[in-house]
Amino acid sequence: MSAPVLRQAPATPFTRIHGIGAYRPSVIVTNDDVCQWIDSSDEWIRQRTGIVTRHRAPADVSVIDMAEGAAREAMASAGIDGSQLGAVVVSTVSHPYATPSAAAELADRLGATPAPAYDISAACAGYCYGVAQADALVHSGAAEYVLVVGAEKLSDFIDNTERTISFLLGDGAGAVVIGPSDTPGIGPSVWGSDGSKSNAIGMTHSLLDVRDLSEEAERDGAGNAAAVLGTEAKIWPTLRQDGQSVFRWAVWEMAKVAQRALDAAGIGAEDLAAFIPHQANMRIIDEMVKQLKLPETVLVARDIADAGNTSAASIPLAAHRLLKENPELSGRLALQIGFGAGLVFGAQVVVLP
Amino acid sequence: MSAPVLRQAPATPFTRIHGIGAYRPSVIVTNDDVCQWIDSSDEWIRQRTGIVTRHRAPADVSVIDMAEGAAREAMASAGIDGSQLGAVVVSTVSHPYATPSAAAELADRLGATPAPAYDISAACAGYCYGVAQADALVHSGAAEYVLVVGAEKLSDFIDNTERTISFLLGDGAGAVVIGPSDTPGIGPSVWGSDGSKSNAIGMTHSLLDVRDLSEEAERDGAGNAAAVLGTEAKIWPTLRQDGQSVFRWAVWEMAKVAQRALDAAGIGAEDLAAFIPHQANMRIIDEMVKQLKLPETVLVARDIADAGNTSAASIPLAAHRLLKENPELSGRLALQIGFGAGLVFGAQVVVLP
Repeated sequence: MSAPVLRQAPATPFTRIHGIGAYRPSVIVTNDDVCQWIDSSDEWIRQRTGIVTRHRAPADVSVIDMAEGAAREAMASAGIDGSQLGAVVVSTVSHPYATPSAAAELADRLGATPAPAYDISAACAGYCYGVAQADALVHSGAAEYVLVVGAEKLSDFIDNTERTISFLLGDGAGAVVIGPSDTPGIGPSVWGSDGSKSNAIGMTHSLLDVRDLSEEAERDGAGNAAAVLGTEAKIWPTLRQDGQSVFRWAVWEMAKVAQRALDAAGIGAEDLAAFIPHQANMRIIDEMVKQLKLPETVLVARDIADAGNTSAASIPLAAHRLLKENPELSGRLALQIGFGAGLVFGAQVVVLP
Repeated sequence: MSAPVLRQAPATPFTRIHGIGAYRPSVIVTNDDVCQWIDSSDEWIRQRTGIVTRHRAPADVSVIDMAEGAAREAMASAGIDGSQLGAVVVSTVSHPYATPSAAAELADRLGATPAPAYDISAACAGYCYGVAQADALVHSGAAEYVLVVGAEKLSDFIDNTERTISFLLGDGAGAVVIGPSDTPGIGPSVWGSDGSKSNAIGMTHSLLDVRDLSEEAERDGAGNAAAVLGTEAKIWPTLRQDGQSVFRWAVWEMAKVAQRALDAAGIGAEDLAAFIPHQANMRIIDEMVKQLKLPETVLVARDIADAGNTSAASIPLAAHRLLKENPELSGRLALQIGFGAGLVFGAQVVVLP
């Protein structure tokens, strides 16, 4: 029996975000636009969600295109080129192919081949999940620099007439480069899941229903999706949520997760320069600020007003805007927290690039 | 400006596989069954691929069900219960929902809530990618035990009449628990991608084509998928490959990757007790054994004869069988390598559980 004589990679003590980038697609959807599809008003939407507009991508701009735009800016600001990337991680739930991943094509466009490249599915916590993985890959010596992208074209997976979530959603991409650091730049990740609440946010039906119904339509003429799936159902599924359950969970449970991320990093709310939560709803952001007793000196990201909820892209997009509008935040501490379908959540304290 | 005072997690020097599990679904598809759908013969399929049967899951068995079966066995053999899992990673390309992930529901079924849970998309390299991540998470101190599952119900995403790959594919799931170790148990991961070859294996068309065609069928009656997508096309896409390109890439490039994994671990072919490549095609396995000049003492996993190509599940399924048939392999060194759509690849030397 051979004794184990494996070499394992040496650890890198500290990590940080080296650069950040954003891609905001060109189509602006106003609340008045939304009110063509659902019975609502600009005033109601602003009051209840804080959203004024959301950006959406035109048909010829893909998840990979948006990811590329954000990635190129992040790499340029980090001073890193593709050949230096040790891994490419794309957080997305809206790449419209079972396989290959968006990340493999993205890596090639960026000149990062042969870096490992994969997509992860963790919905609106996807960016913080990606940061947790990149941190571990760099920390453990598996990679020197890791590109983490949150990229979503949710408009492809929603029905505009759906009333619980579709009007909140926007498209976009944000990216960061994570690498080694002389001082601690990413606090321990507090991340997790609660699959017992998997019904709170998700698709109305399975892609297998789409397969069966489209085959039926192909064979026998018009599909009977309504009969099979219920009133008003369509063959193509849409995202939907139980808004009240999600709101309560986000406000009560996520403030605790954010506090645990502060505790794990060994800092207090008074040490923060910025708070960058997932941009799900302005009222959730306001409630979290209250629960966490953040001092008024902490700048709070409120990109949602302009960008809507962009799922895995929302935190890097919001961080990018905050840094552009407040360049003095560079080098200071921010608390970031993502949460969404799964349910899943992830939070870290980071030093802003 | 606040000085960065973050705490980062302490590193764990060594990791290993603590337990392994497998789930083989109940439907056996023979080569004669396959020949109802494509013009071929049992003899030709055996000669060219080494496949005699493949297992497929019935309609009421999902990716999550299979993942659960494999995970429960892996956890039992590791002596780990759900509450001890620090992360749940499911490698799959066949979970039929954009969101939530299969992993979030799986984690809840296993009593692992609130462990972080996410799916990764790295096709037939997905298991080795998952091992690389689990290794980094444990190594970096982000998690103590990580469950890695490769689970695929590819039969949902193929058309049985497709000639290049569908007849090779089977369903199944394999799982391992990765955790800390007193001695090195997982060599450095040699993993990567080549997105310039993303067209070599993938879906015939986008889910967005499915959306547009199914909406058309709903509105106007029978879909005209054939006219829009080309002769014989159907609304529901299927996996297909350029078999010759993939074969050449696998034989020539993957033997080099496997050699690099040996070198990175600081061992030679003569130190190996087993070779467990992705089960894509028996001829690829034979060629790799030749290229790597493996001594005859090295046991080679050839689960493909019975199981077909099960993508992300193939390596843990093959390892599970090898250990069952040769229990003396426990504690000895195996070289594992996955490769597939992306193109992506990953290899490690591991100490078998």
